[in-house]
Amino acid sequence: MSRQVKLAVIPGDGIGPEVIAEAVKVLDAVTRDSDVRFEKTEFLLGADRFLKTGDVLTDDDLDAIRGNDAILLGAVGGLPGDPRLAGANIERGLLLKLRFSLDHYANLRPTRIYPGVPSPLANPGEVDFLVVREGTEGPYVGNGGAIRQGTPHEVANEVSVNTAYGVERVVRFAFEKASARRNKLTLVHKTNVLTFAGSLWQRTVNAVAAEFPQVKVDYLHVDAATIFLVTDPARFDVLVTDNLFGDILTDLAGAISGGIGLAASGNINPDGVFPSMFEPVHGSAPDIAGQQKADPTAAILSVALLLEHLGLAAESAAVTAAVTSDIAARTGGPRPTSAVGDAIVASLDA
Amino acid sequence: MSRQVKLAVIPGDGIGPEVIAEAVKVLDAVTRDSDVRFEKTEFLLGADRFLKTGDVLTDDDLDAIRGNDAILLGAVGGLPGDPRLAGANIERGLLLKLRFSLDHYANLRPTRIYPGVPSPLANPGEVDFLVVREGTEGPYVGNGGAIRQGTPHEVANEVSVNTAYGVERVVRFAFEKASARRNKLTLVHKTNVLTFAGSLWQRTVNAVAAEFPQVKVDYLHVDAATIFLVTDPARFDVLVTDNLFGDILTDLAGAISGGIGLAASGNINPDGVFPSMFEPVHGSAPDIAGQQKADPTAAILSVALLLEHLGLAAESAAVTAAVTSDIAARTGGPRPTSAVGDAIVASLDA
Ligand SMILES: CC(C)[C@H](C(=O)O)[C@@H](O)C(=O)O
Ligand SMILES: CC(C)[C@H](C(=O)O)[C@@H](O)C(=O)O
Repeated sequence: MSRQVKLAVIPGDGIGPEVIAEAVKVLDAVTRDSDVRFEKTEFLLGADRFLKTGDVLTDDDLDAIRGNDAILLGAVGGLPGDPRLAGANIERGLLLKLRFSLDHYANLRPTRIYPGVPSPLANPGEVDFLVVREGTEGPYVGNGGAIRQGTPHEVANEVSVNTAYGVERVVRFAFEKASARRNKLTLVHKTNVLTFAGSLWQRTVNAVAAEFPQVKVDYLHVDAATIFLVTDPARFDVLVTDNLFGDILTDLAGAISGGIGLAASGNINPDGVFPSMFEPVHGSAPDIAGQQKADPTAAILSVALLLEHLGLAAESAAVTAAVTSDIAARTGGPRPTSAVGDAIVASLDA
Repeated sequence: MSRQVKLAVIPGDGIGPEVIAEAVKVLDAVTRDSDVRFEKTEFLLGADRFLKTGDVLTDDDLDAIRGNDAILLGAVGGLPGDPRLAGANIERGLLLKLRFSLDHYANLRPTRIYPGVPSPLANPGEVDFLVVREGTEGPYVGNGGAIRQGTPHEVANEVSVNTAYGVERVVRFAFEKASARRNKLTLVHKTNVLTFAGSLWQRTVNAVAAEFPQVKVDYLHVDAATIFLVTDPARFDVLVTDNLFGDILTDLAGAISGGIGLAASGNINPDGVFPSMFEPVHGSAPDIAGQQKADPTAAILSVALLLEHLGLAAESAAVTAAVTSDIAARTGGPRPTSAVGDAIVASLDA
């Protein structure tokens, strides 16, 4: 009996369509002989769509996307400074709207230094950690405002909103991940300055820790965490942190592990009420779009996360193994985007 | 005619007193034959004082400190998790209270990779940049609150407050610094998510840029800035950013330039209404306190910033030169804290 998976595919802008083409190529290849059928629906959303129709994400779009089992997204965002996009905030109106509407409260961002990948660090050591970034609260809630805008008396505020409900569920999720890995969890925050939010996060971690006695817990201020990410990244197993700190730490994590061209992510709704969304951490890079210069590896590793999330562990492992061997075989010269996808497919078949 | 400078010295906690002893030693040596007299008053503030008296910083303390021309501070903060300190927040109640009360709106944090210093980066290049961190606004204002604390319905908020007044003055200060350096200014923020605060910062930079046509301006999201700090730190000249992003970026900057053991900072009140305060970026490191293990170089370089701020350019340059040659002569083995101070004094005299 074959299993049907409805997959929403959002190629997006810039290099998005190119890397997604390779990700889909790999997805098709790895499931070719299995009894899982991916029924794909493409959604043309992003800056291009906005320029054509004036819409970023309509309620109808959102309803249609919600009807799927999972989402694969490339990257969204037009040319920075494009005056035609001045009125739109594609990031807030599309990417963050999807994460918030679909209650993607656990943003999973694994970091590994794959054998053969040059790191900017002189001695990175064995790096294999997972950042669990909260996805639906914190400074990302869009709860800001301004008075007297454009005058010398302007005041512009941004509110970080943190709830016991929201913090506890992502902290518990992070403990579960740590239990399935090396049993280490590091809370990252700035409790000495953001005392109210920090206290909620710290108390929540302390409370949930009691349910996971095997997990060793520690704490780092976000500034200190950036130091350890460059001086001793091998010390980390699972990190749990808020939406903004998670954004910052995972770009840094991508950089030390050989570039965000390799960094995959999953925006997870662990409750399974809404489809989870998988995307490379990198942006749309409009400056190199359409030139077959982008590395599709992060998008392909996002497919591995998608497969794992769907319970297709063998297929997920096969993709990761194919990527790992492709990376190890790299000789340094740049390859066209499609050549990377082809090589990974070939390595799957081998 | 000799000039009198009233200097408040706050050694603080942990390794603070040890590194300040060396900093004062160097200050005394470099001004020995000059016509500037430093009249020093020591203030015993920090965790120890709190444990003895229950006070963190009284109004009388603050008044007395305010009467000085400048402040030299070591580091404050007790042992993390010390239950006797649970009720006090030494960082907020002392360090941040000083920065806010004395209107230290420009927190200057220069980063250089000194010749001979091992960086965790494989190929750092020629690194010499200056972070101008806003010091009196943003998420640091202490404008948070919580309801239903300790219940499953807790909501904990933190407000980032940004004013045209506050942003413009620090942005102008950063442009002035850039004009005196390599004429490059990078604004770092997260304008695509923190749209109200981000818009104020971006509009302010655009407006002030018109007064400095020779300065080339660019913009990076804070997440992308962390990437460039590890992949291409040599690209930066002056960075200007808010209080929280500045906190994060400068610890990372310290790490890539060979450790925050070398990172100095100045909390500047450019208007000269209040005394400016100079301190190493590192913390109090209670675990190694009293063992002569701490590197006093950051404290000594903070003296160089202090001297420069007071208009004593030759003395400042002499300290920097002595530090530079001490670093270049390092053979790798650790030296006692006082030996580093002695070596730098010897090199001053040479
Ligand atoms: C595009 C932007 C809104 C987004 C974020 O800040 O979350 C991106 O940086 C990311 O990390 O996925
Ligand atoms: C101790 C702490 C409050 C402080 C800050 O966050 O500003 C420190 O990290 C710094 O960078 O000087």
